[in-house]
Amino acid sequence: MKKSLVFAATLGISASAMAAEPIQPIYATTVEDPAKVELGKKLFFDPRLSASGFISCNSCHNLSMGGSDNLPTSIGHDWQLGPINSPTVLNAKFNVAQFWDGRAADLQEQAGGPIANPGEMAFTHVLAIGTLETIPGYVHDFRHVYGDEVITIEEVTDAIATFEDTLVTPHSPFDRFLMGDESAITMEAKAGYELFKNVGCTACHNGKAVGGSSFQKMGIVKPYETDSEVAGRSAVTGQEIDRFSFKVPTLRNVELTYPYFHDGAVWDLGEAVNIMAEIQLGRELKAEETDQMVAFLKTLTGQQPDFKLPILPPSSPKTPRPNP
Amino acid sequence: MKKSLVFAATLGISASAMAAEPIQPIYATTVEDPAKVELGKKLFFDPRLSASGFISCNSCHNLSMGGSDNLPTSIGHDWQLGPINSPTVLNAKFNVAQFWDGRAADLQEQAGGPIANPGEMAFTHVLAIGTLETIPGYVHDFRHVYGDEVITIEEVTDAIATFEDTLVTPHSPFDRFLMGDESAITMEAKAGYELFKNVGCTACHNGKAVGGSSFQKMGIVKPYETDSEVAGRSAVTGQEIDRFSFKVPTLRNVELTYPYFHDGAVWDLGEAVNIMAEIQLGRELKAEETDQMVAFLKTLTGQQPDFKLPILPPSSPKTPRPNP
Repeated sequence: MKKSLVFAATLGISASAMAAEPIQPIYATTVEDPAKVELGKKLFFDPRLSASGFISCNSCHNLSMGGSDNLPTSIGHDWQLGPINSPTVLNAKFNVAQFWDGRAADLQEQAGGPIANPGEMAFTHVLAIGTLETIPGYVHDFRHVYGDEVITIEEVTDAIATFEDTLVTPHSPFDRFLMGDESAITMEAKAGYELFKNVGCTACHNGKAVGGSSFQKMGIVKPYETDSEVAGRSAVTGQEIDRFSFKVPTLRNVELTYPYFHDGAVWDLGEAVNIMAEIQLGRELKAEETDQMVAFLKTLTGQQPDFKLPILPPSSPKTPRPNP
Repeated sequence: MKKSLVFAATLGISASAMAAEPIQPIYATTVEDPAKVELGKKLFFDPRLSASGFISCNSCHNLSMGGSDNLPTSIGHDWQLGPINSPTVLNAKFNVAQFWDGRAADLQEQAGGPIANPGEMAFTHVLAIGTLETIPGYVHDFRHVYGDEVITIEEVTDAIATFEDTLVTPHSPFDRFLMGDESAITMEAKAGYELFKNVGCTACHNGKAVGGSSFQKMGIVKPYETDSEVAGRSAVTGQEIDRFSFKVPTLRNVELTYPYFHDGAVWDLGEAVNIMAEIQLGRELKAEETDQMVAFLKTLTGQQPDFKLPILPPSSPKTPRPNP
């Protein structure tokens, strides 16, 4: 929050007014190492990090589609359907931890997960490195960025995470409103924001990402009905009290990241809002209130990824062949 | 060829010298309808044209990877492995017809094929239109580009084909050489080009696309050994004489479009060259000759797609749900 205050002061906006809000604006990332970001971008789009040569990070965290795949649960190697909804990679850097159950501490740790998950990219870190080492363009890039002749999985995940660090979505109508532009959002959206605060949504959906800062039980007041067998946070902590606890998802760009919840069971944003109000807060919203809330949530759509499609370096005859 | 001559004259290059070459340079496309190209680009990247919501045109004609998927045969709906290698979409506009067997007359006719192919995107044209009509961003774009309220499959494939028309790869080292820059390619590549002509490769691999202008039997001098059961051109003409005849693939960007041949059985470009020389021309190349030929072929890599990742318009609650 300190950084926001500095920014607010720089921009001449009342710092105290902005600090009093439970949501803080997002600012564009300053890229410190463009070569590393470019390398990470290529890796993010490269299906050669999967056993099949068909699935890349972007397959399930599609940057053309809000950083998600817009499927209930993701399609992985051999068309396996995953157990859980693919969370957006946009603004993921603001999350307290990664994955729905927080089993990865940060983006770098997360990035290694899907590569080696038999249900996702179905590769191994050793095979991924063995592939990259045979691609002259990557050997050049890694040497340039990391200054050595050996490619390691730590470098691969570091580069991907560094790219993902840039995937923030500033300039949303709501952030412009937060920064003083009263005309940036409609009266209906403003009413929705007041309701969002007054009903209690901001207890969990707060901060820069409007979520991502804590783990909470899905179904505090009333149980959430689902066919999903995913245990949530208890799978990490081993504690029964954490069963059905999940990392609160970000609501940034929520208009783009349907279907909703860890099981991806709900497609309509208004329906998702109503379910949340009911099972987390014991509150039944009127139709008008739901509409206001949805109008507010849609103002959280920020600037989407804005870069050129990366061109991947070709394999060499030594490159291990994909195994679909 | 006439257009090339005009260009050559404009550039002050000896028109007669360039006309005498069996390969003509590629020039960047002039975009006449940018809005239509942008719409086609979105559709090309949109997995909602598939039943699963997971497969887009770009899945198998990956513009980060030479417009191909770098797999022997493509992965389609439900992880079905296709019968044939995915041809590059780059410079496909120069082909005499589309698909390996030429069953589509042009890019527009081709674009409708994979959408409705049960082994590929596994959708139907009716369902694809039904999906697009519920996406406000697309309704807006189609109205803007085509001036009516109804979206048709002809408009969808027209927009995709118009985008694909822009996917040419000018400025390759070889084209710069053709246009008079003697330093654009190495001595080895020049020797390879002379060999390419003298051995007889240009009988089929000629024109702007260095291929794509005719159908030829795979295995003229000696049969091609393959596990593939694909019949080739005879499936279209019904004539036995066309069995194992295929559209000659473009050699533009061949460095990027491995594995090679209609069955995608050969990964090494040198090996592909040797097999072609042997089974099409009855010629065994010396190692040095193969290297020269490969050096030449690598000069055919031109400017790759150079545009921003498209951002897709979100679905609405009315949008039919994907069915993985």
